[in-house]
Amino acid sequence: MKHILMLAWLVVLTACGADQTAPLQGSMAGDTTGSQKTFQWKMVTSWPKNYPGLGTGPEYFARQVEAMSAGRLKIHVYGANELVPALEVFDAVSNGTAEMGHSGAYFWKGKVPASVFFTSVPFGLTAQEMNAWLYHGGGMALWEEAYAPFGLIPLAGGNSGVQMAGWFNREINSLNDIKGLKMRIPGLGGEVFQRAGGEAVTIAGGELFTAMQTGVIDATEWVGPWNDKAFGLHRVAKYYYYPGWHEPGSTMELTVNKKAFDSLPADLQAIVRNAARAANQNMLDEYTAHNNAALKELVEKDGVQLRKLPDDVLARLRELSEQVLEEQAAADPMSGKVYASFKAFRANVKTWHAVSEQAYIEAR
Amino acid sequence: MKHILMLAWLVVLTACGADQTAPLQGSMAGDTTGSQKTFQWKMVTSWPKNYPGLGTGPEYFARQVEAMSAGRLKIHVYGANELVPALEVFDAVSNGTAEMGHSGAYFWKGKVPASVFFTSVPFGLTAQEMNAWLYHGGGMALWEEAYAPFGLIPLAGGNSGVQMAGWFNREINSLNDIKGLKMRIPGLGGEVFQRAGGEAVTIAGGELFTAMQTGVIDATEWVGPWNDKAFGLHRVAKYYYYPGWHEPGSTMELTVNKKAFDSLPADLQAIVRNAARAANQNMLDEYTAHNNAALKELVEKDGVQLRKLPDDVLARLRELSEQVLEEQAAADPMSGKVYASFKAFRANVKTWHAVSEQAYIEAR
Repeated sequence: MKHILMLAWLVVLTACGADQTAPLQGSMAGDTTGSQKTFQWKMVTSWPKNYPGLGTGPEYFARQVEAMSAGRLKIHVYGANELVPALEVFDAVSNGTAEMGHSGAYFWKGKVPASVFFTSVPFGLTAQEMNAWLYHGGGMALWEEAYAPFGLIPLAGGNSGVQMAGWFNREINSLNDIKGLKMRIPGLGGEVFQRAGGEAVTIAGGELFTAMQTGVIDATEWVGPWNDKAFGLHRVAKYYYYPGWHEPGSTMELTVNKKAFDSLPADLQAIVRNAARAANQNMLDEYTAHNNAALKELVEKDGVQLRKLPDDVLARLRELSEQVLEEQAAADPMSGKVYASFKAFRANVKTWHAVSEQAYIEAR
Repeated sequence: MKHILMLAWLVVLTACGADQTAPLQGSMAGDTTGSQKTFQWKMVTSWPKNYPGLGTGPEYFARQVEAMSAGRLKIHVYGANELVPALEVFDAVSNGTAEMGHSGAYFWKGKVPASVFFTSVPFGLTAQEMNAWLYHGGGMALWEEAYAPFGLIPLAGGNSGVQMAGWFNREINSLNDIKGLKMRIPGLGGEVFQRAGGEAVTIAGGELFTAMQTGVIDATEWVGPWNDKAFGLHRVAKYYYYPGWHEPGSTMELTVNKKAFDSLPADLQAIVRNAARAANQNMLDEYTAHNNAALKELVEKDGVQLRKLPDDVLARLRELSEQVLEEQAAADPMSGKVYASFKAFRANVKTWHAVSEQAYIEAR
């Protein structure tokens, strides 16, 4: 998932007649009372309709809610720009144009600086660690606090798992090979890459293939094997690098307009919260399962050269990432508060996972 | 979670007057029709009431179901032996004494040999990998097939994450140090340990402290820092070894009596399935978050010596584990079918996680 794909949809598709004028419907159908009221909700997203993982995730969520509520809460999922532009999801849910949204918290950095910590940051938490921080480490309460001024309730609604570092048309053997390298890498990762001597640019996902083919860029990251293969990036770059230091476990966000949420009876509120929990896990399961097969094909059938970023390059990126995160934490008091919690949790879970997840995976 | 704790409850608590005679109630209350019918269910478990993680997990599940159904489906959770003995959960749900159960699939090895693959096996899948195999790798369909002859529907209902290798009263520097070592380690892990030259014994969880203190055993595994600290094992053993090669991500199981499940309207069925998904994630989040703090205290305050099992010991255990698993796969056709799926998925996901989870955790 990348910022620039969003930007592209914003630019390209705003011209396609996205209907941004639809007002928030009264949303109740039928004349039943109490818990038998029915609700028709809209969910706007930052992804093309049914895009693998990112787009199928919110559809999965909506199906679970409809099934659990026996149709009392139906949620229509809109692809990016069908109702509002990809990067206006936050505002649309905040102002009630739609009752829900599915997007990435770090897109709202300009509005809510602390939001960057709720998707994924360079050298941050893995999916399992993010979930533990959010649900049993105080993260969710901070996220709710950060979004409260906007009348929004955030929920974790999917995770990509550890991403790949990206596609390169030449080998990266040292920091020198990064100097001047023009790479499509957005967000805080791009900021870090820039400080390491590279040139970070932002190009739409749909344009990555052509940009690589024509030499406009030398390298690009996207998500992981499952999504990257679908874009055919293996046909324009030979080297596929890992690990995805810049996005080690990106949480997708579901947002709910607080007034709309408060209008639901308690059972439907519980259904929304639990469906989010299920969708959060299901997307990670899907990426974990599909990435296997895609990577195997890329390496065994497509002749992709899989490479690990050299240790000294990773060490430098890690060093620079801490700088960038500390600066980000200084953006405003809320960012400082969130980062303090995030950082403390990361230190603890890193100690635990060094002797559990890491030690086990290395031993098997 | 260990077999022997179950055995202990079975032995000790059967004498405590557990009511095993309660028949399956008609379960419907009130005189409403259709989707407004209400249901009162019983859930029997293999854990003490509200035991951290294992016992609080099914309570969490029941709370979600009740909230989402507005009380139309209430599930009373029984601790081990309150209604049936700890190791009769499978039978009790199968014969309708209770509508649901929460336990560990590998306890039913004698009845369903293939069940061992649905909890955790030596050098098997991590929590994230298990979930991917179950929900997007064909695992769940096989689990359902294995339990269908017993009128049971299985659901994943919690995960401990990677466990610890255990507590030792002396250092393990080579395979020689395992020879003759009397260790409490049940199940397939115990079988492997035995073949490595150790003596595997089974002792109840509640007796581990005394058994270590009096020298009846030289070593014991249990779960992880959060649960182990609660038993005070750091006061009777100095060395705490990792990684938990024998249980790298134990899935707890929820079972539902199929006739009871079929009697539910579709919305309540969906609620049960999604609550299981949420509970499955929530328990892992809880272990991940609590293990951090407990390990920190054990090492920093209690002076526990944290040690990694030597590489050659782990290599030998891995080798023996493959033998044990292959033999297990030959137990019956269903076991062979499940292991073929499990093994293929493990090979693929191992390749993927070597360049994602593992490479990332090592780099940070």
